[in-house]
Amino acid sequence: MTVITHTSEVQNVTKIDIYDSTLRDGAQAQGVSYSVEDKIKIVQRLDELGIRYIEAGNPGSNPKDLEFFARLGELRLRHAKIIAFGSTFKVGGDAATDANVQSLLRAGASAVAIFGKSWDFQVTDILRTTQAENLRMIGDTIRHLRQGGLEVVFDAEHFFDGYKANPGYALQTLAAAAEAGAGCLCLCDTNGGSFPDEIFDIVKVVCSRFKCAIGIHCHNDGEMAVANSVAAVRAGATQVQGTLNGIGERCGNANLCAIIPNLQLKLGFECIPPQCMKHLTSIARFASEIANLAPNDKAPYVGSHAFAHKGGMHIDAVNKTPTAYEHINPELVGNHRTILMSEVAGRSTLLALINAIDPGIKRNSPQTQHIMDRLKQLEHEGYQFETAESSFELIVRKELGKYQPFFELKEFKVIVDEPSASGVNSSAMIKIRVGDTEEITAAEGDGPVNALDQAIRKALERFYPAIREVKLTDYKVRVLDSDRATAAKVRVLIESTDHTESWTTIGVSTDVINASWLALVDAIEYKLVREQERQTAPR
Amino acid sequence: MTVITHTSEVQNVTKIDIYDSTLRDGAQAQGVSYSVEDKIKIVQRLDELGIRYIEAGNPGSNPKDLEFFARLGELRLRHAKIIAFGSTFKVGGDAATDANVQSLLRAGASAVAIFGKSWDFQVTDILRTTQAENLRMIGDTIRHLRQGGLEVVFDAEHFFDGYKANPGYALQTLAAAAEAGAGCLCLCDTNGGSFPDEIFDIVKVVCSRFKCAIGIHCHNDGEMAVANSVAAVRAGATQVQGTLNGIGERCGNANLCAIIPNLQLKLGFECIPPQCMKHLTSIARFASEIANLAPNDKAPYVGSHAFAHKGGMHIDAVNKTPTAYEHINPELVGNHRTILMSEVAGRSTLLALINAIDPGIKRNSPQTQHIMDRLKQLEHEGYQFETAESSFELIVRKELGKYQPFFELKEFKVIVDEPSASGVNSSAMIKIRVGDTEEITAAEGDGPVNALDQAIRKALERFYPAIREVKLTDYKVRVLDSDRATAAKVRVLIESTDHTESWTTIGVSTDVINASWLALVDAIEYKLVREQERQTAPR
Repeated sequence: MTVITHTSEVQNVTKIDIYDSTLRDGAQAQGVSYSVEDKIKIVQRLDELGIRYIEAGNPGSNPKDLEFFARLGELRLRHAKIIAFGSTFKVGGDAATDANVQSLLRAGASAVAIFGKSWDFQVTDILRTTQAENLRMIGDTIRHLRQGGLEVVFDAEHFFDGYKANPGYALQTLAAAAEAGAGCLCLCDTNGGSFPDEIFDIVKVVCSRFKCAIGIHCHNDGEMAVANSVAAVRAGATQVQGTLNGIGERCGNANLCAIIPNLQLKLGFECIPPQCMKHLTSIARFASEIANLAPNDKAPYVGSHAFAHKGGMHIDAVNKTPTAYEHINPELVGNHRTILMSEVAGRSTLLALINAIDPGIKRNSPQTQHIMDRLKQLEHEGYQFETAESSFELIVRKELGKYQPFFELKEFKVIVDEPSASGVNSSAMIKIRVGDTEEITAAEGDGPVNALDQAIRKALERFYPAIREVKLTDYKVRVLDSDRATAAKVRVLIESTDHTESWTTIGVSTDVINASWLALVDAIEYKLVREQERQTAPR
Repeated sequence: MTVITHTSEVQNVTKIDIYDSTLRDGAQAQGVSYSVEDKIKIVQRLDELGIRYIEAGNPGSNPKDLEFFARLGELRLRHAKIIAFGSTFKVGGDAATDANVQSLLRAGASAVAIFGKSWDFQVTDILRTTQAENLRMIGDTIRHLRQGGLEVVFDAEHFFDGYKANPGYALQTLAAAAEAGAGCLCLCDTNGGSFPDEIFDIVKVVCSRFKCAIGIHCHNDGEMAVANSVAAVRAGATQVQGTLNGIGERCGNANLCAIIPNLQLKLGFECIPPQCMKHLTSIARFASEIANLAPNDKAPYVGSHAFAHKGGMHIDAVNKTPTAYEHINPELVGNHRTILMSEVAGRSTLLALINAIDPGIKRNSPQTQHIMDRLKQLEHEGYQFETAESSFELIVRKELGKYQPFFELKEFKVIVDEPSASGVNSSAMIKIRVGDTEEITAAEGDGPVNALDQAIRKALERFYPAIREVKLTDYKVRVLDSDRATAAKVRVLIESTDHTESWTTIGVSTDVINASWLALVDAIEYKLVREQERQTAPR
């Protein structure tokens, strides 16, 4: 009988350095481009997850990355070290005068990653230089950066293809980097076509030859990047490079959202502090949202379908014993079980929310069922309350009769003129009623939604001065059924703040202005409800 | 030095039976449901691809599947054998009187798959019966179906979890099936959480114990279903079950669109007739369309991004030698290479595009630099041309003086009214000029963008009847600097088709209507440029 073991073959290694490249290699994905603000938000969330290294960009390649590195000082990171990424100096050049190498030294990060070629054919046919010159480029670049006081990771580009073609030369490129002082040799499956058993065998050879840390960087062109990364760790690699949700060029990079729990929850390695594992699902969804990519519902561990059970038999079995159809407990990664036929799983979460508003409601009260039905109907229409809990709270209040309208909309009219006389091309007229008083007013804006936002706030300020404190901080639009083209349904999310609290509200409609209006109204009503509570609470 | 071999360890096996369950296990995916017509179309495409077995449904479980089996006679299949799926008879029952078993006999398929439990805990805690009774259920069901003249595949549910818990009993369930005459013992990783090395070791044990064919059925809960299936084949399995695009419950089933080329193009197994491999991409996209799922752009081998190159250095290298950044030739699977236009793309990509319009422009012509600068400036403003190549072509034409305006916008006005008298709340008035003629018209729509789309097309039809052929097929909105809230910049992408060609255009503005307008105008101008070319080309 075969004995199956799942500890690393190098018995004393249990800590794995996770190296996130969502902001660098992930930004190579088609359709992805981050603002500097986006980058800072993602870095903060990665740090919260306990990631060890964050490769944040290439300061020598573009002004946006340069601006990010200039703002490094703002960040107060607890776990993560920022890595600046770049290449060796060019053929025939030297480190001291190479612009890219110099920008790495000036970037302000204490660690850098340098990529160099490990495949002989790439050296001769793509770089069009000699094998010796390539070794000099690798060694001298790394030596120079080490002299500058930086920690250096060497990314051995195409290492596995190179090893298969010419193992001797591939190992020489690693030796050049190690001798120059690289702290980690990261082996890249750049074209993404390798198999786990190849990766395992080759990493084992490399680990037996070098004393410094060995890393692994896989791409998903054969749909095996996760298995390849795990195979490398089992063979002795201690650094794993990848991206959140596996985003990246072509078929993507190795998906850290699957690798981390595979290694930590099943094989006993420590990738992140155990208490951070429960943030995995929320950071994965956050990263999709920031990149404006639709989240992958069937993503392992973190997808909304990952623990969804459909067939009646499966549901019965899962109710008896979850392990019957679940490979892990979904709560470990901050996800949850979904029972698609009867919403029993969601009921206790829902009840907690209802009880915050009315503690008298019970699990089997008719109101609970009623709100459950309303929730299902709205989700069917395209609403999604995962991020818009404030809109959901308003719905619960309305269903429970715990809500008094603050104003009534009589009418609005939005006009967009092209060409516009002034710089602003949009205007909105609005008529509302508060008690017995009607108010009609108008405002201009940068686009129709902005005009409407200005107008409704102007109309309400007279009645509710607290509205002045509210500032909208985020506005997101997602087209739901995009094949219906310009008649498609859109979902708008608006984030607001009054500098004490932030809240997010939602609107869904076939018309972007109407969807925005629904979310705007919720944002205002939520503020007024909180204001009312503040005034009535301490009598 | 380790020797890496990639032939099956059982040297004389090179033919693999691919077993597709898109229509059965795939239909368990959230949101998927097929009509009988859909099923027939997919069966025909799978047969065209040269698939050996098609598991088409469970005739005992629902009337739709029953209707499908009734229509089996219509099908003239060249390669595939249809499989009817079902379970063993129930605890305490017998094969001759069990309704499900009888419906399998009546289904008209010459082969069936029967699932039974291989994990002792599932027998005692879920089925709530004895280990012996479970063995009787498996053996007697299969014997009865064999006596009815059918070929039988035994799906050993939870085999790997069962083997890890109690290897002796798991093997007894296989023995019961083999002795009763099963032609194939298919080992299922039902919960999807196993690792390739475990799968390899366990399949090896099973292959050494049984003479009949061994199959593998994996789920993707650890993102390793493809690697696990390949590991099983390397250990001696000769039947691989999976689905097109990996659709299925929770995180999906093993993805045949990756497994087939991995095994056949890289490891030398024969899964489908070699001449059928080029149909893989088109059948994958067809299957997504029929299931009404958005195709996965980053899917290995068959995704539209699978061979897309973005970074300038990558593009230069791929132009020199495709193997530099491609693990296989995309044409082998019917896919193709894409070079993406973006700020990181180099000068040679840009030049190729410029030369398609004006072959006289050189790499160092002033126009090349000029267009490069314009591209960078637009990308800085939020434009992104990697998907909107048609807008980019129009810009190049305009910069080269190779463009004559088709119309001039004099004015438009869009009005949104809330509440609306009719169902549609938006209307647009537009005034344009073509030559000496002015046209003013108006249209209503479902939202302001839809109204504007209707109005501009109505105004232009009189001058350019070809506009009638254009249909908008996709509409995407992305907020760029969402922290500026409702005054944020938005990017709109519009996809259009005239049933011969599809093209994507872009618009960026702080105003969603203006951004949509820019993308709409490009969509129309692109069509008119193509139309002009068609009319002038063959004089």
